[in-house]
Amino acid sequence: MKLAVLGAGAVGRSVVELAGEYGHEVVALADSSSGVVEAGGLDADAVFERKDADGVVGEKDVAAVLDADYDCLVEATPTTLDDAQPGFGHAEAALARDRDVVLANKGPVAERYDDLQALVDESAGDLRFEATVAGAIPAIATIDGVGAGRVTAARGVLNGTANFILTRMAAEGLDYEHVLAEAQDLGVAEADPAFDVEGIDAALKCAIVANVLHGGGYTLDDVDVRGITDIPGSALELAAEDGRTVRLVGEVDEAGNARVAPRLLPENDTLAVTGTQNIVQLETTNAGRLNLSGRGAGGPETATAVLADVDRLAD
Amino acid sequence: MKLAVLGAGAVGRSVVELAGEYGHEVVALADSSSGVVEAGGLDADAVFERKDADGVVGEKDVAAVLDADYDCLVEATPTTLDDAQPGFGHAEAALARDRDVVLANKGPVAERYDDLQALVDESAGDLRFEATVAGAIPAIATIDGVGAGRVTAARGVLNGTANFILTRMAAEGLDYEHVLAEAQDLGVAEADPAFDVEGIDAALKCAIVANVLHGGGYTLDDVDVRGITDIPGSALELAAEDGRTVRLVGEVDEAGNARVAPRLLPENDTLAVTGTQNIVQLETTNAGRLNLSGRGAGGPETATAVLADVDRLAD
Repeated sequence: MKLAVLGAGAVGRSVVELAGEYGHEVVALADSSSGVVEAGGLDADAVFERKDADGVVGEKDVAAVLDADYDCLVEATPTTLDDAQPGFGHAEAALARDRDVVLANKGPVAERYDDLQALVDESAGDLRFEATVAGAIPAIATIDGVGAGRVTAARGVLNGTANFILTRMAAEGLDYEHVLAEAQDLGVAEADPAFDVEGIDAALKCAIVANVLHGGGYTLDDVDVRGITDIPGSALELAAEDGRTVRLVGEVDEAGNARVAPRLLPENDTLAVTGTQNIVQLETTNAGRLNLSGRGAGGPETATAVLADVDRLAD
Repeated sequence: MKLAVLGAGAVGRSVVELAGEYGHEVVALADSSSGVVEAGGLDADAVFERKDADGVVGEKDVAAVLDADYDCLVEATPTTLDDAQPGFGHAEAALARDRDVVLANKGPVAERYDDLQALVDESAGDLRFEATVAGAIPAIATIDGVGAGRVTAARGVLNGTANFILTRMAAEGLDYEHVLAEAQDLGVAEADPAFDVEGIDAALKCAIVANVLHGGGYTLDDVDVRGITDIPGSALELAAEDGRTVRLVGEVDEAGNARVAPRLLPENDTLAVTGTQNIVQLETTNAGRLNLSGRGAGGPETATAVLADVDRLAD
């Protein structure tokens, strides 16, 4: 398939670099301020050399990229809340032209799932968004395989930054502020870590899973959210003395309630993954509990989920 | 889709009982000695009442079921080795009529993968076999999603009976023979447990995964197999003193070598699932390691994998 990629951060860049390996071709790419269109396929090295040197990917703008002759739009711009713009508008433009859309951007499916499905219903194009939940872990594909109506509940550790911090606090007996600074030094946490440590990122993933399981109706506002910023190191020490640990767990329960909160778990619980790992646990009507774990973030990891979606659309 | 189901054991029965929930219809069913064909759809309750009372599902034979007007054949007769008959012949008959085939029977894909793919190449029908590896766990679908060429190695705990026995031996400090008798009482091990405890079942699953990863070429003979029958309880005690445990691990390594053998693992290793749980671990080129765990056997669990395949074929 011919791909147009919006967003030239870690994920967008990895999609451009790996697309050829999957037999697809990137014909257009935009970052936040510039765009490039090459009907015969982009030269990834040349484009990123230019971006690194001049801060732009090409002479054109986002509008030109949206107008390019592509089969599938990959939306990998940063997640935004509320109206989920500009990501939502990008998806809208592609669907209006009967093109397929693959989202890595969580905003449109977390905040405007119903609006988006209405556009899909009117379009000959289709929509997939595996990359929006837990990176490389095939959460959405597994729900699709089992059938959303046969998944009664879902829970998981959905944010690697928060999990890294909790794991380090428990292992070293250090306080939150101390470990956060370490995580920032390592590049595991961003300079402004609020999105991760306050549980918002995990809550967006919960909203997306809830939308998939219940056919829509959820936004971030429907998720009860508590982060990890007020957990003292002493709480983790107390937990450890009792063979337990704390994880930031996102959950959509059987009644359809969605929440993110720190939870006390047995130290050897399947959910208690360590470091930046993520895990998704699905309860099913006929097949018991399924556990899926792996890398929940990262450019190539998330691009793997994007390109698996592109392959499914190509089939 | 209209399904013909071959095999009326736990898996075949669950497929018949659950098909309607998935929007499919079973129009024919055979057990080892009888068959029933109902163009308008079987009455599952009536058929299994008859089987329980008279030992037959109907007046017809397997040939009549193979000749029925179905879209997809579900092959769920017991796994056989070498020529994999009669399962292979059933799949062959369906593909020759350009029908789709879904296998729960491991024999044809473990022992005659290349022969089977040659038949698929000549047919308008397609073949899927998610249920042959680790029951409800979406191992094959996840390999398909990542792309077989991007999965560099696979390993896992692939036999619930052997894992139950090892877990109990370690937990109770009991010997193999003692725990085997207990497992047989509980129905977790069969009267003749050789297939499970000697590693053959796990080895067939390894051969199937190796065929998927490498495009064929493997049979049971290509898998180096050691079971759990000669592990003394004292070995597990020694392991436990060192924070370790033993699991029967099946593996297809980076060089393409396939083997099943007891392996010493850290007690809290992701691979060290307990009881009858299975796990599949995939190493990928761009997405790191993925872990998939859940119930590896059971009628409804395996039927879930069968019906997910039917859904994929229907799409």
